[in-house]
Amino acid sequence: MSALAGKTAENLEKIRATKPLIHNITNFVVMNFTANVLLASGASPVMAHADNEVEEMVDHAGALVLNIGTLTDDWVDAMIKAGRRASELDTPIILDPVGAGATSLRTNAAKAILAQTWVSVVRGNASEILSLAGQGTKTQGVDSAHAVADAAATAAVFARELGTTLAITGPTDLVTDGRRTLIVEGGHPLMPRVTGTGCAATALIGAFHAVDKNPVSAAATALAFFAVAGETAGAQAQGPGSFMTHLLDALYTLSPEEVEARCRIHQE
Amino acid sequence: MSALAGKTAENLEKIRATKPLIHNITNFVVMNFTANVLLASGASPVMAHADNEVEEMVDHAGALVLNIGTLTDDWVDAMIKAGRRASELDTPIILDPVGAGATSLRTNAAKAILAQTWVSVVRGNASEILSLAGQGTKTQGVDSAHAVADAAATAAVFARELGTTLAITGPTDLVTDGRRTLIVEGGHPLMPRVTGTGCAATALIGAFHAVDKNPVSAAATALAFFAVAGETAGAQAQGPGSFMTHLLDALYTLSPEEVEARCRIHQE
Amino acid sequence: MSALAGKTAENLEKIRATKPLIHNITNFVVMNFTANVLLASGASPVMAHADNEVEEMVDHAGALVLNIGTLTDDWVDAMIKAGRRASELDTPIILDPVGAGATSLRTNAAKAILAQTWVSVVRGNASEILSLAGQGTKTQGVDSAHAVADAAATAAVFARELGTTLAITGPTDLVTDGRRTLIVEGGHPLMPRVTGTGCAATALIGAFHAVDKNPVSAAATALAFFAVAGETAGAQAQGPGSFMTHLLDALYTLSPEEVEARCRIHQE
Repeated sequence: MSALAGKTAENLEKIRATKPLIHNITNFVVMNFTANVLLASGASPVMAHADNEVEEMVDHAGALVLNIGTLTDDWVDAMIKAGRRASELDTPIILDPVGAGATSLRTNAAKAILAQTWVSVVRGNASEILSLAGQGTKTQGVDSAHAVADAAATAAVFARELGTTLAITGPTDLVTDGRRTLIVEGGHPLMPRVTGTGCAATALIGAFHAVDKNPVSAAATALAFFAVAGETAGAQAQGPGSFMTHLLDALYTLSPEEVEARCRIHQE
Repeated sequence: MSALAGKTAENLEKIRATKPLIHNITNFVVMNFTANVLLASGASPVMAHADNEVEEMVDHAGALVLNIGTLTDDWVDAMIKAGRRASELDTPIILDPVGAGATSLRTNAAKAILAQTWVSVVRGNASEILSLAGQGTKTQGVDSAHAVADAAATAAVFARELGTTLAITGPTDLVTDGRRTLIVEGGHPLMPRVTGTGCAATALIGAFHAVDKNPVSAAATALAFFAVAGETAGAQAQGPGSFMTHLLDALYTLSPEEVEARCRIHQE
Repeated sequence: MSALAGKTAENLEKIRATKPLIHNITNFVVMNFTANVLLASGASPVMAHADNEVEEMVDHAGALVLNIGTLTDDWVDAMIKAGRRASELDTPIILDPVGAGATSLRTNAAKAILAQTWVSVVRGNASEILSLAGQGTKTQGVDSAHAVADAAATAAVFARELGTTLAITGPTDLVTDGRRTLIVEGGHPLMPRVTGTGCAATALIGAFHAVDKNPVSAAATALAFFAVAGETAGAQAQGPGSFMTHLLDALYTLSPEEVEARCRIHQE
């Protein structure tokens, strides 16, 4: 057992014991699944996006998750308002730049949130992350066009440039703040065939970050837990429908001990 | 078999026979699950929130369900407009004050809806209900901070004060209009680990109220049916994912006879 | 094996090989399920409705799906803007007039989209389609009040009148452009007890149309595939909850060969 595997189990135990409130301003497609992933894992989700409510809700929250799918300008404003409040309170902010690179609305929104709030972790696929660093090739929708491996070499540079921790997910996940880099392996090929698994991973990083103030450790241990749950679900699933069901069951039933024994997380 | 158990079965039969249209103005997180719960139970759901559509849709409906999750001001306006029309038509209105007490937007919205429309039933957890009665402690998100038992003593007073029927749900459910109080037992511990089970219970009260004009009886029999379905699902589930699946199956397949035999509903 | 069955298998293979991006502007209730149906079938879904994003997203898309559930005026504007761009690019537009006939907002929106963009296929139940042709009786919610059989005689006339292909679904599906009419049989009685199966069928027509430029063939082969998947799911389901799960699994696992052998599609 590595120290990182132990940390994964420890964070999971803390979430289940303290049920941190995770405030999500996220897209319509994944709201239900995101809430269920958080609940199954032991956290308390809340979704709130009104201009005249977000600051008050942030005050209750252990983490703020911003996700730019199904975006409009007023939602960007609400995200920035919520993010500024979270920045004041030192509440961790996790950004999911869904589809950044695909349209200028999304690329610009992700950049504005990064510029105007203190984002602790950005979770995206390699294309989305690359688009933020100004090297963006156009991404097709929300799928990854670049392999994580291609991104690994430049990820640490990007993280320092952006002044945040990057969690780049794909068949292998990479988490870096520009100094320390952690690698997470596992998961299942059905994960990208269910909508919102990436967004759910981002929300889980929020839950882990609410109980673990180190962004690199929080992000990597969240992804390590999610990968074990994905493997558990994939072993039982007959397709993406049953995969979703088994994934929620696994997030709920996996013991910290089993997660510690099975998760594959290491320093690069 | 009590008369109340018989009434539960009778109401379920009526829903399946007449498929009442239930108009929901509800939050983004639970729209899909709410629609599926209503469909599985035999009702016909419709979701419509546009200012220039809600009155026309209310005209078709057997009940109007208002739910203040993921709220913004324009949705409050639409709810009040729809509620006024429903009040004119004597169409029952059921209010779910999701997160009331957590932010002033939600507390004020719930109070405004209560003041400006004729709400027949309010369904919430004890914290949400208490916040409406002006005794509110801050609720954390949408979870119950107070036990139903603590609320039972004051519920009848609150119901008279608010001039509506209260359905306070938790491990034990309590329904009161200030004169008559019904208790519903049952359900399953996995229910609060699936997002939207409370909201779905509210929508089911809408379906039962469309076929049963007595708000106390409608609310309690709906909750009694939902509790039996929850127990059926819980006996088969391996976690919250499979619980959701089995719950929808149970709502569809349970016979009125089985519901009558198993539901636990009694006068206090 | 008919040529049409072969075409169904061929289109499915093309979707899985090319993963066309399907741009959906659709309702809140079905966004998640629609995305999962497209992903399970092999397509790449994206949901985007912002006024300042839709044209850019259409530029990436193989088809545009417009669905008028949970509608407001600003969404109608976005749909028309996206539709005009798609019309310029000759990208197929598929319209789902959810609830047309139930309220004037929806009926007028569907008519405006038809008037201002080049809709390739309209998919709806008989009531919704009839309401567009100016013969509309009021529909109750989104359920079909007219049998497909009643509509069959007039469908070809309507299709010519509207200048589009109509896909009228029910126990038997009918697809016509006014000259050629195809009939699809199959499916399962649980399909209308799950919310969004009609909307998902519309989105699947988008995926098939992205790889098959003939609207009649694209619509009918999509419905034929969906019907086989529905039968597969229905044979395993215990109710609407497990039906959803098995349906997504079937859309993912069915081989083109099995679809070709089992689908029931013929020229009238």
